[in-house]
Amino acid sequence: MNGAVDLPLGQAELSFTAAGDARVRRSVLPSGVRVLSEQVPGSRSATIGFWVAVGSRDEQRADAAHPATYGSTHFLEHLLFKGTETRSALDIAISFDAVGGEHNALTAKEYTCYYAKVQDRDLPMAVEVLADMFTSSLLDPTEFESERGVILEELSMAGDDPGDVANERFFEAVLGAHPLGRPIGGNPETIRSATRDAVWEHYRANYRPQDLVVTVAGAVDHDLLLAELDRALAAAGWDPTVAGRPVDRRSVVPAALEAGPEVSVVARPTEQVNLLLGVPGLVATDERRPTMSMLNAIFGSGMSSRLFQQVRERRGLAYSVYSFAPGYSDAGLFGMYAGCAPAKAGTVASLMRDELERLAEHGVTAEEMRRASGQLAGASALALEDSDTRMSRLGRAELTLGEFVDLDEALRRISLVTADDVQRLAGDLVARPFSLVAVGAIDETAFTGAAAAVAPSSDVA
Amino acid sequence: MNGAVDLPLGQAELSFTAAGDARVRRSVLPSGVRVLSEQVPGSRSATIGFWVAVGSRDEQRADAAHPATYGSTHFLEHLLFKGTETRSALDIAISFDAVGGEHNALTAKEYTCYYAKVQDRDLPMAVEVLADMFTSSLLDPTEFESERGVILEELSMAGDDPGDVANERFFEAVLGAHPLGRPIGGNPETIRSATRDAVWEHYRANYRPQDLVVTVAGAVDHDLLLAELDRALAAAGWDPTVAGRPVDRRSVVPAALEAGPEVSVVARPTEQVNLLLGVPGLVATDERRPTMSMLNAIFGSGMSSRLFQQVRERRGLAYSVYSFAPGYSDAGLFGMYAGCAPAKAGTVASLMRDELERLAEHGVTAEEMRRASGQLAGASALALEDSDTRMSRLGRAELTLGEFVDLDEALRRISLVTADDVQRLAGDLVARPFSLVAVGAIDETAFTGAAAAVAPSSDVA
Repeated sequence: MNGAVDLPLGQAELSFTAAGDARVRRSVLPSGVRVLSEQVPGSRSATIGFWVAVGSRDEQRADAAHPATYGSTHFLEHLLFKGTETRSALDIAISFDAVGGEHNALTAKEYTCYYAKVQDRDLPMAVEVLADMFTSSLLDPTEFESERGVILEELSMAGDDPGDVANERFFEAVLGAHPLGRPIGGNPETIRSATRDAVWEHYRANYRPQDLVVTVAGAVDHDLLLAELDRALAAAGWDPTVAGRPVDRRSVVPAALEAGPEVSVVARPTEQVNLLLGVPGLVATDERRPTMSMLNAIFGSGMSSRLFQQVRERRGLAYSVYSFAPGYSDAGLFGMYAGCAPAKAGTVASLMRDELERLAEHGVTAEEMRRASGQLAGASALALEDSDTRMSRLGRAELTLGEFVDLDEALRRISLVTADDVQRLAGDLVARPFSLVAVGAIDETAFTGAAAAVAPSSDVA
Repeated sequence: MNGAVDLPLGQAELSFTAAGDARVRRSVLPSGVRVLSEQVPGSRSATIGFWVAVGSRDEQRADAAHPATYGSTHFLEHLLFKGTETRSALDIAISFDAVGGEHNALTAKEYTCYYAKVQDRDLPMAVEVLADMFTSSLLDPTEFESERGVILEELSMAGDDPGDVANERFFEAVLGAHPLGRPIGGNPETIRSATRDAVWEHYRANYRPQDLVVTVAGAVDHDLLLAELDRALAAAGWDPTVAGRPVDRRSVVPAALEAGPEVSVVARPTEQVNLLLGVPGLVATDERRPTMSMLNAIFGSGMSSRLFQQVRERRGLAYSVYSFAPGYSDAGLFGMYAGCAPAKAGTVASLMRDELERLAEHGVTAEEMRRASGQLAGASALALEDSDTRMSRLGRAELTLGEFVDLDEALRRISLVTADDVQRLAGDLVARPFSLVAVGAIDETAFTGAAAAVAPSSDVA
């Protein structure tokens, strides 16, 4: 590997807190491509991801000259499987199918990731094919039209899933007009009006060497990986002097959110109501993230959590009930979900809100703190057995967090969280403006009796 | 471990073809409990399952004296989490949550499985808690009523998922009046009328020592496991002399199926039509199972498969399209799925049927055979990295197949399959009576133009 800068841990742009863990390495190729790998001893397979820090939030609103590009990131993701200068769509599919590999891609709000999981001997093939897709896709006009139909079917599938509909509406309700509030895939109108030229422009503007982050976990040799990537990317003839800095997600200021409607109902002739209740949460880099992990574990994650016990175990009101706390670069959410009978939706909304208020008022027990830290430690250890999780952790470190944190360090930070911290964060959350979304055979009046569930208890946002 | 019979490989009731693989062991405790373990070198966690060969197919129709017990197996599965003589529901939940373990259960058509995935040090806890749930659950009447509500919500959730609805209807259509054709969870009427006494009777009749199969994969020591199980089960005071043989799924005769309706439509105001088309397939122990694996890989599994290429890649008619071939003790199915626009449903149904006919008529290429065997080998190797898959493989070997087949032997059998075998099986399938199920904004007339898709091409069943 000629000219690659192998940055020692702790001296790279990315900070590492896994001191002495030589199994995680980061390099920057002369072209600007960033490469992170984590070698897992004993592993016989590897997961590889090609990331770019562009997601649905980066798409443009309509203006006088242009239609909205909503959904173009996801459209592009599909098109990268449809053929390059040297490979047809079928060639790409055969490459992975012939070795029983998994390959797919994911468009998110702040990034796009093309990934594959293969046996160790097939990693060079995965590097070569993914590099070709990333650099040399044709976006053939005929394939473009055919894929438009596929994407419209994908949107229809999501539109038929009441949980998906509720989730998209919940982001809109809590985040208001913020770009993170928009659905990832666009909508049927923007997909029908999308042009090949606009998606091509998006591809050329955002898939440059300095935008690419490659992460690999499992059976990987970092130096061999650099050599394979170098060879595969050189073939694409990328110009490493192309101007422009990559998107920087790490150092943004939390957004001032304009709250959406308090109650948003989507009428559907379904048996259940899909109910979501929540508030703006923490950004991904908020230093209270370990506190949020503890709060979420105690409040709404697992069968022993307060939400599960109150809503399902004691009252039998729901099958699925939990809380969640996703974080992005400049905004986040804290949400509670339950699927319940329409006649019980008002009761369930009040119960969920009351439980959060109770946590804010009375705090958590030492026993709950002990249990939650055990839960986070054990669940993380099990999750990290999977090279998928480790591959994603590297991407998230590079693109969003700006630091790599290994399991020991993550658990050390968890261990510093106090019961007071958890109670204080709960108090902060209940003071934010609540949004309620319900999808089902129901209307807004179902929640008038549960007014406390949606009236913000203070004006502090 | 006193008195446990450690059956050498190949001499047990279960036949082993993993000759020399000493990491898989099987023992039968004096009480009749069967124990299988697979030790995976380097693993730091384990997945454990408590199985019983009773599923929804074993439930009773209504008669003059009794209402139907449909759904009682699944109801019982829920109740085993609700408390024992010495543990409350919360105690059980805390046991696993406090160590970050995963624990859940699965009711299937021919078995029920309670399982947990934990770090190695927590395996003794998992053995103890699962043994307590299995032997000493109270089925408390108050908990019974509360859980009835939870199960009704679970059924509502499935009823709101058009894919679930289509799948249940498809089993009914293809298998007709066969007990495997019934939905696993019963229906709201049978759940509303279920009594605690009937479920208790089901529990006492089917959860005897000779019914229990325990399988563990990952970081497990077989002898320690036997000792832990012996201790945990002895505490339950099980009587090993209790009469009766366990359900035997291995040596049944394939059922004569009475085909359901040719076309079955469930009208729903959804955007997509969920379309399923298929025929009776192979039983789990059919010697053509390796041939079916090759056929399914070539025909409808993966992005390079014929179905994916014809329906999605060339025509953009669907996002999700694939084939599947589940096998049970005395019946099986071969099915094709697509989610598509209502206006295209007739076209898609014809395309799918035509592709299968084409395979039956013209066979497969040597290149497709080579690719499919690579796909099965690679995908199996990746799947077996997960102790969940290995734990399930042991259970399936004991309960359904009557033999344990390791990866090498499975691939050896795959390697013996010829292109002629695949073509012959396809010819056999297309000669069977086709059923078509559609869930969506559509009626039967949508398929009159696609009559070829549903008219059986011969009378051979």
